[in-house]
Amino acid sequence: CCFANIINIISFLREKKNRHDIRKVIHSIKVGIALVLVSLLYLLNPLYNQVGDNAMWAIMTVVVIFEFFAGATLSKGLNRGIGTVLGGGLGCLAAAFAQAVGGIGRAIIVGISVFIFGASATYTRQVPNIKKKYDYAATIFILTFNLVVVSGLRAEEVLVLARSRLSTIVMGFAICIFISLLVFPIWASDELHDSFVSRFQDLAHSLEGFSKEYFADVTEKEKKSSANYFNSCKSILQSKPKDESLVLFARWEPWHGKFGFSYPWRKYLQIGEELRDLATIILSLKGCLKSPTQSSEALGQSIKEPCEEIVSSLAWALRELGESIKTMRNCRSEDAIVPKLKSVRLELSLIMTPSILGTNLEKADGLGLAS
Amino acid sequence: CCFANIINIISFLREKKNRHDIRKVIHSIKVGIALVLVSLLYLLNPLYNQVGDNAMWAIMTVVVIFEFFAGATLSKGLNRGIGTVLGGGLGCLAAAFAQAVGGIGRAIIVGISVFIFGASATYTRQVPNIKKKYDYAATIFILTFNLVVVSGLRAEEVLVLARSRLSTIVMGFAICIFISLLVFPIWASDELHDSFVSRFQDLAHSLEGFSKEYFADVTEKEKKSSANYFNSCKSILQSKPKDESLVLFARWEPWHGKFGFSYPWRKYLQIGEELRDLATIILSLKGCLKSPTQSSEALGQSIKEPCEEIVSSLAWALRELGESIKTMRNCRSEDAIVPKLKSVRLELSLIMTPSILGTNLEKADGLGLAS
Repeated sequence: CCFANIINIISFLREKKNRHDIRKVIHSIKVGIALVLVSLLYLLNPLYNQVGDNAMWAIMTVVVIFEFFAGATLSKGLNRGIGTVLGGGLGCLAAAFAQAVGGIGRAIIVGISVFIFGASATYTRQVPNIKKKYDYAATIFILTFNLVVVSGLRAEEVLVLARSRLSTIVMGFAICIFISLLVFPIWASDELHDSFVSRFQDLAHSLEGFSKEYFADVTEKEKKSSANYFNSCKSILQSKPKDESLVLFARWEPWHGKFGFSYPWRKYLQIGEELRDLATIILSLKGCLKSPTQSSEALGQSIKEPCEEIVSSLAWALRELGESIKTMRNCRSEDAIVPKLKSVRLELSLIMTPSILGTNLEKADGLGLAS
Repeated sequence: CCFANIINIISFLREKKNRHDIRKVIHSIKVGIALVLVSLLYLLNPLYNQVGDNAMWAIMTVVVIFEFFAGATLSKGLNRGIGTVLGGGLGCLAAAFAQAVGGIGRAIIVGISVFIFGASATYTRQVPNIKKKYDYAATIFILTFNLVVVSGLRAEEVLVLARSRLSTIVMGFAICIFISLLVFPIWASDELHDSFVSRFQDLAHSLEGFSKEYFADVTEKEKKSSANYFNSCKSILQSKPKDESLVLFARWEPWHGKFGFSYPWRKYLQIGEELRDLATIILSLKGCLKSPTQSSEALGQSIKEPCEEIVSSLAWALRELGESIKTMRNCRSEDAIVPKLKSVRLELSLIMTPSILGTNLEKADGLGLAS
């Protein structure tokens, strides 16, 4: 039975890996197609006659903003748009002002404005909240402002130049959005959702892996796989930045699949926090395995059965919660999970009284309830 | 005394924050100066006559590669260099090949090569190891290859174009490196080193904060600051990606200050791993504070004194280790820390035998020794 379980897990992981690989291949092909489409601006004479060398900006836009997730592409594209428009507008103003002054003062004003806007935008980029959401917009702002204001010295018609560049950037953006959102879209929202479902399962697995190893009815091979479970706890602990960026992207993504318009993405961050707390506790159990003052053989046997029962209840509750997120149904919590956890808690306090078992399992229970 | 302590902590934090803010201001000013310098390519007639509109590429280079840390600027600049040279070289080859075929086949070959190179470079970007180190090089490779191969259709002298662009990129790179490394450099290595020193102190603080709160000789105000200590544990848990990128940058940085050429940066990653394990354990102690089955008042008082002594020994050991990293001297471990920790362990096993204290502190001790 255990052997069959391991095979199941392996095939599950392989399937997951394959799905991941296929998404990578799809993404690569999509980027290739977008590049070919945008190159048509050069390849087809009628198009090239329209846009000229500004086609370069369309290519640059595609290369830089086409990201793996549809939401990321959208957010980066909009960032680029904001940065270009703001930088271009202010750049035109500064260039016009410099032109009005004229003479040697012109170059001086350009230099000073480059310094002031460059330095202050760079400072803004380092404010954590702006860095998270608008870092790219600030970069593009500096770049566009600089290019526009200095070419204002050379090209007489800054506005024409700016307009034609902006229009090619919009073309590149349109190609990206079209391909990213309509051709086999890869949604950040799906990724976020699925990763939460598998996190619940991973936590349940690692709880079970721990109890098996603690009560020593475990083969060498299984020991290795339980070490893997602890690793999955560790990766859950480090999931915060990934979650935050996925939530950011998911909020940009239009209505699709099972996710409605005002889907509560922020709740994922809260659940993620609880899961990380739980993972901390499970990881700290690992210390019990190494501890030299581990409970004696006889005592271990006496608490073995109730402990295993408790672990299996907790794992079951975690799996139920994960399942309810997966199917997006209300959890059967009122009817089944809460009473079961309460009985677990009772059972625990019965074991605790006469034994020297640590307070670890109790804590795990408390958090299981809390999440 | 406690009040004075808090004031000390606040002033320490303010000082730290100020230092951080000053670095941000310095960085912003440096970027401003670099932008003005690179704008001189447009502003001064003799320079502009040399480089022409390709000066644009120098500006772009400065905006994009000037990063906060000197090592990051260096690594991004070299990435850009690698990507430009590879992409430009292959692009020229493909353009020459397309030219040799001629006719309508030319456009087809260009289209196919754009697709193949674009898609395969995008796939490579998603290999974790390459993503970590060469993501930017791959982006620039795609961009340069694409631009060179499509302009090969229009501009007859691709090689001249490529050479002049490359030379302006090198100019931008030179300005960045000069300002980033020579004018008030901000080293990633210093940041990494200092963050490790303060991590040891944070862990010691949070251990002490926990023991104070557990034995209830704590005011409301202090309770808040101990919550802060737990938060610092949490931020240590999430330090892995930051450490990895800092180590990557630090390895690029030339010999400076106290760090020699073959400084063992990788060891920081190992120490970081140990510190995260320790932070996990300290964080899991938090559960004891909330647990309803907390040890009874009388028992709590009976173990209070030895426990506090143990915690202060552990905190002392952590501070010693942090201090030895800070001063870069061999730790007094053989003479002082190890015997002290051994006596702590002995003391612990004395307390453990008759009591129902959990195995948590024991574990903390084990890891204190391990790190």
